[in-house]
Amino acid sequence: MAGNTEKTLAKLGIALPQAAAPAANYVPFVISGNLLFVSGQLPMENGKIAISGTLGDSVSLEDGQKAARLCAINIIAQAKAALGDLDRVRRVVRLGGFVASANGFTDQPRVVNGASDLMVAVFGDAGRHARAAVGVNVLPLGAAVEIDAIIEFA
Amino acid sequence: MAGNTEKTLAKLGIALPQAAAPAANYVPFVISGNLLFVSGQLPMENGKIAISGTLGDSVSLEDGQKAARLCAINIIAQAKAALGDLDRVRRVVRLGGFVASANGFTDQPRVVNGASDLMVAVFGDAGRHARAAVGVNVLPLGAAVEIDAIIEFA
Amino acid sequence: MAGNTEKTLAKLGIALPQAAAPAANYVPFVISGNLLFVSGQLPMENGKIAISGTLGDSVSLEDGQKAARLCAINIIAQAKAALGDLDRVRRVVRLGGFVASANGFTDQPRVVNGASDLMVAVFGDAGRHARAAVGVNVLPLGAAVEIDAIIEFA
Repeated sequence: MAGNTEKTLAKLGIALPQAAAPAANYVPFVISGNLLFVSGQLPMENGKIAISGTLGDSVSLEDGQKAARLCAINIIAQAKAALGDLDRVRRVVRLGGFVASANGFTDQPRVVNGASDLMVAVFGDAGRHARAAVGVNVLPLGAAVEIDAIIEFA
Repeated sequence: MAGNTEKTLAKLGIALPQAAAPAANYVPFVISGNLLFVSGQLPMENGKIAISGTLGDSVSLEDGQKAARLCAINIIAQAKAALGDLDRVRRVVRLGGFVASANGFTDQPRVVNGASDLMVAVFGDAGRHARAAVGVNVLPLGAAVEIDAIIEFA
Repeated sequence: MAGNTEKTLAKLGIALPQAAAPAANYVPFVISGNLLFVSGQLPMENGKIAISGTLGDSVSLEDGQKAARLCAINIIAQAKAALGDLDRVRRVVRLGGFVASANGFTDQPRVVNGASDLMVAVFGDAGRHARAAVGVNVLPLGAAVEIDAIIEFA
């Protein structure tokens, strides 16, 4: 049953987590036309924040990139929950990356590359996206990174 | 003349404010296709910021939720100005929530729930939306919360 | 060959820069349907950040507005790279403005007006957009402002 995208995930050694269920009156994704809007995902692993803290302070660049990659894995898990088959993804349109940052930390783009690189590893050229990457002083639950997404599907 | 959504608003005891007029070369909303993009709304009441300051410092969680609810009321007022009839709302697609936060405050999702809960109270299942909730150190005019929206309409 | 919009740019004395090439696995823009999503643009001039630092600290309101205007020029350069002819722009739908801000600086809307005003100067009524303007403590490469865009085209 697994499509090509899921085979790619398997080759990358990535097991998609259970897509996090709605926690409140917002939902993890909404479909409008052929666009899938995915709520801001945190670097959750096994149901809890795997990487918390602040870049430029307690979190290294490498761990920030791992956090961004985890956010991207959770985005893909939501896309699978929404679409059933990840091969329906036509284009990752946009990622919005928020990086918990000390005032002097200005390397947000390299942090968010952890997510961007995974999208291309998983979806190929369809994974190339527009994005914004900004610093913020603090994120929900103390997460190091939060990323949301808009995905075009067929 | 009032549609069902406006009856719901009345039952909730919510009087929509006059939609704030454009303050500059940006406008409070733009329609593209069947999507309504609403500019970031502040917790304005009677023409001024009702709740200013920083969560985790001068603003309590409860007041932050009230601020988020006020932002949502202003989003709905803009939707009415844009669409005429709120019953044309098919889906609140996405809310973007920014919470003015002290460095140690990590409860942004519960703050933004003040807006999410109102959307579902007003629009029912059509009010369930994707969202991002992040902390920032400061917002326009010192507002405690800012929220923008994408709404699908018919 | 220059369309009307490029004539307007020339009258404004604005030479579009070379659109910055993709720096990584994200790209400067993605087209989905008739919407152009432009990645967050920094106040780059001649290939480097022209205005860095923090509003309310080392950067004046006037310089912040210049930074926002530069971001807008870079957005327009990306739109030209994407669409070929800027006269294809039907509407600037949304700008997302992030302003590097000291905790006490609350004038983000006036900063982002530097971009909003340029969009209307260049595109006329089609340049009037929805927007969000928020403060953040720090931006990539120390930039004073970052702005992303959604543009409808024909």
